[in-house]
Amino acid sequence: MSLMLAEIREQPDIIMRVANQADRAVRVLADEVRRRAPRLAVLAARGTSDHAAIYGKYLMEINNAIPVALADCSVFTIYKADIDLREALVIGVSQSGQAQDVSEYLARSRKLGALTAAITNEPNSPITRVVDHTLLCGAGTEKAVAATKTYTATLALFYLLSWMIAGDDGAQDRLRYLAEQMRALIGRSDEITESVERYRYMQFAAIVSRGINYATALEIALKLAETSYVGVRGYSAADFLHGPIATIHEGDPCMLIAPPGKAYESVLDLARKLRDKRAEIIVLSSESNILDLATARVDVREVVDEQLSPMLYVAAGQLFAERLSVVRGHNPDQPRGLSKVTSTF
Amino acid sequence: MSLMLAEIREQPDIIMRVANQADRAVRVLADEVRRRAPRLAVLAARGTSDHAAIYGKYLMEINNAIPVALADCSVFTIYKADIDLREALVIGVSQSGQAQDVSEYLARSRKLGALTAAITNEPNSPITRVVDHTLLCGAGTEKAVAATKTYTATLALFYLLSWMIAGDDGAQDRLRYLAEQMRALIGRSDEITESVERYRYMQFAAIVSRGINYATALEIALKLAETSYVGVRGYSAADFLHGPIATIHEGDPCMLIAPPGKAYESVLDLARKLRDKRAEIIVLSSESNILDLATARVDVREVVDEQLSPMLYVAAGQLFAERLSVVRGHNPDQPRGLSKVTSTF
Repeated sequence: MSLMLAEIREQPDIIMRVANQADRAVRVLADEVRRRAPRLAVLAARGTSDHAAIYGKYLMEINNAIPVALADCSVFTIYKADIDLREALVIGVSQSGQAQDVSEYLARSRKLGALTAAITNEPNSPITRVVDHTLLCGAGTEKAVAATKTYTATLALFYLLSWMIAGDDGAQDRLRYLAEQMRALIGRSDEITESVERYRYMQFAAIVSRGINYATALEIALKLAETSYVGVRGYSAADFLHGPIATIHEGDPCMLIAPPGKAYESVLDLARKLRDKRAEIIVLSSESNILDLATARVDVREVVDEQLSPMLYVAAGQLFAERLSVVRGHNPDQPRGLSKVTSTF
Repeated sequence: MSLMLAEIREQPDIIMRVANQADRAVRVLADEVRRRAPRLAVLAARGTSDHAAIYGKYLMEINNAIPVALADCSVFTIYKADIDLREALVIGVSQSGQAQDVSEYLARSRKLGALTAAITNEPNSPITRVVDHTLLCGAGTEKAVAATKTYTATLALFYLLSWMIAGDDGAQDRLRYLAEQMRALIGRSDEITESVERYRYMQFAAIVSRGINYATALEIALKLAETSYVGVRGYSAADFLHGPIATIHEGDPCMLIAPPGKAYESVLDLARKLRDKRAEIIVLSSESNILDLATARVDVREVVDEQLSPMLYVAAGQLFAERLSVVRGHNPDQPRGLSKVTSTF
């Protein structure tokens, strides 16, 4: 078994742990956020962590009414700007805690008066030294280069944080339920990856979702790119219709992430358009309407609240990516040209 | 000559017009921004306009110290959130003025207390009816489906706005200078597109830059996707190193946007890494260091300030995309599967 697969399988336990043990640190930060009532939040991250930040943005805007910006780190690191962050909450995300530009963004934000926090899997890593608060993923060492368990642990932390800021005490229970559903899904991994052989020679693919699962589309796309070297990108269905859909011809593979919820209709609508173009449509969903339009169905039988679905659906995508990498003769644990810690400054 | 090429050529005149005629409307908005001193700005846009918004984000953070968020419209349109925007400036960008989700975002922002503005090429379009201020591109009707002149006109408006908020009166002169340099570059379009035939059968490509020209990378990628149906995506060099670079093998085409400026070293560094991988490197630059690493050189002899370079360099990319479309036997004016106005809600 690859390290990546082993780590994918650890995720339900880790989310359970976040629900049971991270609550104290999260509550301290949530209380300070409530007290200081920041005018805005800025989330700084790169790569996989940036996708977690997109999830965090949706949650905090929807649940907490706080406008959220994603940081362009280079504004600080390259252009040395002085952004007014006196009433801002700035959260940096780095699983290794070593992303230099994220650390510099946090350090500078703190100097400019922001309330700062880090989400990381590494206690005592550089990023923890420049912030007021640290939230730990507690995912254990992540050995595979392609991040999986630190991603979902970060999502779980954002979920807890957002609901604790909102003063809702049910988030821990809901995370526990999600963890059980994810365990059930992972237990069916042979079903989830049933159609993978079909994509042995796929050269590119588009991964599309909408709303809060935009993050999931980006993250599954990155996992496929990292482990199968497929030229693949994630899109929001809305942006996809503004141009990239023109590149889709008959037989071109599009994977749609379509959990039930408020964004579902929009993805269903795209599925119909892609069907008209005779595209190859891989559908991840629990809903028969859209599964019936699929060329390849990934039947996600488990159903969770839309805000929890990014954790469930990304697990399905991770399983798909890991299996595809093996089927294509690669080693998912040794992505070419990648290292676990990426330094950009 | 294609409509797209004709419109690319109109751009220097249009930027001159923005510099000479749009200043009054821009100044009124800039004065109100200075008076109200918003805590943050939110930019709402889709597709090409979203790339213009990314440029706007860099400018306002660097020149005006205002933190800027890019809107996820679905937070309002799908999730009906109540974001606290009382001290926000919200600018929506839509060349047609008909982007429904952008209009809804603006209408809701205004109701929530934000100062609102629209940037559009269409006076009296729907978007203008839901905002406090309208800035017009004045680009004349854009007939080609692939937007070119409305994009650079929008950039010019953001440039004027940002510098007028900063109280700098030199922006108009600098735009005039930029327009002259762009005219010179477009006059050399045969040189700019000299290597295009080489990419007759290209199936995918990565377009990469860093800093403020991240917007340029995204926009050139979209033009190529729209008019040549190439599976192409734009990246920030920093994000590119966090995963996607693993998909680049010997001979795979990467286009680097590398004007001189603070972000230049970072792109040069990436060029060296790609050279080691024996990738095909198309370089758009005035700098010999990086041009010498290129497989195909697009020698941009004109040199402008880094904040103006996105307008100059995107013109080079537009010329490249239009020519490539023709060389590949397509009609750049009739992208398959695209319409001029995209409705997403």
